[in-house]
Amino acid sequence: MKELLYEGKAKRIYKTDEENVVLVEYKDSATAFNGEKKAEITGKGRLNNEITSLLFLKLKEKGIESHFIKRISETEQLVKEVTIIPLEVVVRNVAAGSFSKRLGIEEGRPLSTPIVEFYLKDDALGDPLVTVDHILELKAAAVEEITILREKALEVNAVLSSFFAELGINLIDFKLEFGKDEQGQIQLADEISPDTCRLWDQKTNEKLDKDVFRRDLGSLTQAYENILTRLGGHQHV
Amino acid sequence: MKELLYEGKAKRIYKTDEENVVLVEYKDSATAFNGEKKAEITGKGRLNNEITSLLFLKLKEKGIESHFIKRISETEQLVKEVTIIPLEVVVRNVAAGSFSKRLGIEEGRPLSTPIVEFYLKDDALGDPLVTVDHILELKAAAVEEITILREKALEVNAVLSSFFAELGINLIDFKLEFGKDEQGQIQLADEISPDTCRLWDQKTNEKLDKDVFRRDLGSLTQAYENILTRLGGHQHV
Ligand SMILES: Nc1ncnc2c1ncn2[C@@H]1O[C@H](COP(=O)(O)OP(=O)(O)O)[C@@H](O)[C@H]1O
Ligand SMILES: Nc1ncnc2c1ncn2[C@@H]1O[C@H](COP(=O)(O)OP(=O)(O)O)[C@@H](O)[C@H]1O
Ligand SMILES: [Mg+2]
Ligand SMILES: [Mg+2]
Repeated sequence: MKELLYEGKAKRIYKTDEENVVLVEYKDSATAFNGEKKAEITGKGRLNNEITSLLFLKLKEKGIESHFIKRISETEQLVKEVTIIPLEVVVRNVAAGSFSKRLGIEEGRPLSTPIVEFYLKDDALGDPLVTVDHILELKAAAVEEITILREKALEVNAVLSSFFAELGINLIDFKLEFGKDEQGQIQLADEISPDTCRLWDQKTNEKLDKDVFRRDLGSLTQAYENILTRLGGHQHV
Repeated sequence: MKELLYEGKAKRIYKTDEENVVLVEYKDSATAFNGEKKAEITGKGRLNNEITSLLFLKLKEKGIESHFIKRISETEQLVKEVTIIPLEVVVRNVAAGSFSKRLGIEEGRPLSTPIVEFYLKDDALGDPLVTVDHILELKAAAVEEITILREKALEVNAVLSSFFAELGINLIDFKLEFGKDEQGQIQLADEISPDTCRLWDQKTNEKLDKDVFRRDLGSLTQAYENILTRLGGHQHV
């Protein structure tokens, strides 16, 4: 029996025999609006496990390290254990979602430059947007760490934006999480999947991400399969 | 007949015969929660007009310029006309109000250092908190202007905090507005009053500001008279 360390909304983290290595199991649960909307969607765990693996491999190929070690089954991957920095680091290329609503910028409007935002990872508070001053006051990260997070997030954006563009996909925005490893080094962690990215078909603007679930736009697994196929992953239909 | 240029929630701005000078009339209206809660409170206009005048004079004495020219009647003052920068610049010394709720920091907890926040001045959007990236994207201010706003706001905080402290009052937080004059210079503008500051009695923690109205804590005019009296202003009871 694997020892469960932590269960989140989308994944379970298990202990492994190897020190500083944990097993991530991707669940079939879909949640939105801070857990208010929920569903079980067969195949979602497999899709996100494979998509995340392919994207972390792509980043590695381009010189960007992450916690990812290897995918070991349809729904499981091994990763380096880190202490997660309690910030969701969001990069936006095009206005969408809460950003559009908050600031009155029409969804779909390209931003003049990529924007990095930090949200406090705290479900009870509803993951509020935080400024650098807030982050320092909360001691969620130090000022040099914030600089690193911002730089790494923009590097990831540069690689993923052009990679997705080659596949006919517009990377609208995405959320990253970072952690510190046992040496205190900041590592890109968590997942990069259609659950955590907005991905629009370049030609049709069709949404191929979790907005399909949030806004009831059709079949989530079909959208995620579409992404996986373009990434060159296995197809299970 | 004075020509009305603009009517806001708390003040009316009128044209004057002098170029680049406008007349500000302080109304008796009290509003909170983005206009959801409203009342007419006789005497409020007079109190805020006088308190704002005294505070702008105090700042001037300490070398901080503002739009303020002079008080000309119980409810009116002359100020330099500016083009308001659409940002509410908030300085916080102690956690309170929306800040406490958003970040889960107990009301009354002193911050480790004063925090400056920017809110987009847009009633339709509910004055959302904005980061530097948002401000730049919205072209609400340029990056050098944001630096000036932050510095000026902290200077105002230093002067007002110690001034209020001498009067037995704890300056918890406050909101400033800035504008640009005809030469494009950034000027401190709008008002500084118990409508725009949180002011707590140092000994009793009694609230002597608009929270009295927001939270139905008693007589607003009594609280504002208390502040005016300590500032050495006229008493009308
Ligand atoms: N390498 C890692 N080491 C430790 N924890 C991790 C790692 N990568 C991700 N996590 C954490 O695993 C948890 C489970 O993920 P998830 O189900 O997405 O949680 P949540 O409900 O917080 O979104 C999250 O708290 C996430 O931050
Ligand atoms: N010196 C000035 N020149 C021009 N406008 C000003 C000046 N000082 C303040 N204002 C503006 O006067 C308007 C009226 O004030 P107020 O009633 O407080 O408005 P609001 O409802 O926006 O809070 C506000 O838009 C404020 O920004
Ligand atoms: Mg998650
Ligand atoms: Mg106002």
